[in-house]
Amino acid sequence: MTTHEPLPPGSTIAILGGGQLGRMLAVAAARLGLRTRVLSDRPDDPAFTVAAETYHHAFDDDAAIARFATGADVVTYEFENVPLSAIDVALKHAPVHPGRRPLAITQDRLAERKFLHDCDIPVAPYVAVDSLQDLAQHASKVALPAILKTRRFGYDGKGQTSVNDAADLPAAWAAIAAQPAILERRINFERELSIIAVRGLDGATVFYDLTENHHADHVLRTSTVPARAPDSVERAARRIAERIVAELDYVGTIAIEFFLVNKWGENTLLVNEIAPRVHNSGHWTLDAAHVDQFENHVRAIAGWPLGDTARHSNAVMTNLIGEEVQTWQRLADKPATCLHIYGKRTARPGRKMAHVTTLSPMT
Amino acid sequence: MTTHEPLPPGSTIAILGGGQLGRMLAVAAARLGLRTRVLSDRPDDPAFTVAAETYHHAFDDDAAIARFATGADVVTYEFENVPLSAIDVALKHAPVHPGRRPLAITQDRLAERKFLHDCDIPVAPYVAVDSLQDLAQHASKVALPAILKTRRFGYDGKGQTSVNDAADLPAAWAAIAAQPAILERRINFERELSIIAVRGLDGATVFYDLTENHHADHVLRTSTVPARAPDSVERAARRIAERIVAELDYVGTIAIEFFLVNKWGENTLLVNEIAPRVHNSGHWTLDAAHVDQFENHVRAIAGWPLGDTARHSNAVMTNLIGEEVQTWQRLADKPATCLHIYGKRTARPGRKMAHVTTLSPMT
Repeated sequence: MTTHEPLPPGSTIAILGGGQLGRMLAVAAARLGLRTRVLSDRPDDPAFTVAAETYHHAFDDDAAIARFATGADVVTYEFENVPLSAIDVALKHAPVHPGRRPLAITQDRLAERKFLHDCDIPVAPYVAVDSLQDLAQHASKVALPAILKTRRFGYDGKGQTSVNDAADLPAAWAAIAAQPAILERRINFERELSIIAVRGLDGATVFYDLTENHHADHVLRTSTVPARAPDSVERAARRIAERIVAELDYVGTIAIEFFLVNKWGENTLLVNEIAPRVHNSGHWTLDAAHVDQFENHVRAIAGWPLGDTARHSNAVMTNLIGEEVQTWQRLADKPATCLHIYGKRTARPGRKMAHVTTLSPMT
Repeated sequence: MTTHEPLPPGSTIAILGGGQLGRMLAVAAARLGLRTRVLSDRPDDPAFTVAAETYHHAFDDDAAIARFATGADVVTYEFENVPLSAIDVALKHAPVHPGRRPLAITQDRLAERKFLHDCDIPVAPYVAVDSLQDLAQHASKVALPAILKTRRFGYDGKGQTSVNDAADLPAAWAAIAAQPAILERRINFERELSIIAVRGLDGATVFYDLTENHHADHVLRTSTVPARAPDSVERAARRIAERIVAELDYVGTIAIEFFLVNKWGENTLLVNEIAPRVHNSGHWTLDAAHVDQFENHVRAIAGWPLGDTARHSNAVMTNLIGEEVQTWQRLADKPATCLHIYGKRTARPGRKMAHVTTLSPMT
């Protein structure tokens, strides 16, 4: 617990990263009367058009990061592959939340797995592999089929490949460009779930309702609340999230993705991934919760009381990937539907371009 | 009816006026993937920090207005005292919605009363007065007590003064600086109500639920949905709104304020004011409707299908005026409460600084 005064309206929030998450953070900050500056290495990034100040620079341009952080009241980030060097530079000029350690841990799948192990939080069986020899030697510990995942710079299925039997190992190793990796058992899960938690500067922690997710080609397609899961599973997810944020002395919004496994009739939650930021599986909160994940992230890092995470509606969020955004006109005409288009110029395959959330009365 | 193609994401919406209404319009446009430029004569206006392009110029700077409108796909306005000359200049470069005529009519209380009369829509008894002599001569037609209102540049009670008996007339005339005015009978109303309607480029018209308003010192304090009014009154309000927008060939969001009068047991709606723009009494739509009044204004002027106006919650919206914004920290901590702070630097008395909306389940 820290005693602190909240940043008053008019204060400046500096956001590293200018994608749709940065854009929705900037809009949330504006709603609270806070100013934003956004830094991104891409000139056309979606957040630039809704920020008071824009910085178009590389994330490893230390001089630019220093200027960006100077005069900001707090610095945050919207993606987990921000170089730690940028955080180190920013920290000389302003507080950074959620801080350096959550990034350092989540940038490295092996460090993340070790962190979870230290917290006594179950994950899928895995081994660390640094060479094809490691891979051949340790594959049996994991039991195939498995997934080979690079330790660094993975998201939306990038840096991942399947290993169905031992004969696949050399090709898999080549597919991830022979980088340090983990080999992880492929889990037969009942459901993919996630929980979005927010921890304030004073340590108060709030949770959004457990969300059920569906992925295709490693990219999130839909998130649904309420999730089909018993209360005991929701309670377990909250306890796990609470342990993680307490352990990290976390400040801000965090997403924890789970596999729900049912073994011999008993439910177990395995943590699949931690995202130290606002998260796609929490986009439904924009339209179906009293205060959304973006605003609560801003409230947390600004030292404000956290907003009410309760839902007023049931919701199904669907991502529009690549050319799917071309259906916007039809979607704009659907009842009970909230449309969010990110303003990206080119609809590359696999790129998240927009999402829609359809609401229905609470059940 | 016009055949038209909707403006695609990436198009530019130009907004005349940079106050909180412009700010919320800009945010709504961003959510649809549209770019915004904002023009205002005040450098610190709230909308500037969320717009892609900002133009700090006087509204009567024709050259600036021309630059502002050039390259915009559509021009709109967020307040009704935009000079008509600005609209005329803008129209040479881009479509302007809701257009010139709604402004011309609503900028002049007398023209507005005459327009309503031509539409067979009841208003409070009034006379036009251009001199103290007129005032003395015609006061009896209205029956005192009455309100003397300047024809032009009135809002939030500015340019208004009470006339309780004939002896007050000279002082009242001096109080409004001897400007052309109307003298209007003070109505003993049951309720103040308003309806927000949105008409698309194709003529389709949608309505938000009837709203019950409370004013103090001529400034809106609270708006509540559902309003305490029978269904017949809500139907009448919709019919009146529909008549007005059809008559104006209106495109965009409009607000119509009513007095609900009960005379000999029968309800009558008198129109008190038309606002050819998004409106404070529709702020609850941000948090309690599927698609809010700001987004629906943007959809309308961009030629998009209109969004679902249905509510998912009951709502009470409360304005924070002047120094009341200092209570933000306490309000940020209230359950089921959505906070909107406009980012204005100085909390002058009577100035709208923020609002909060408290939600509850639908009844």
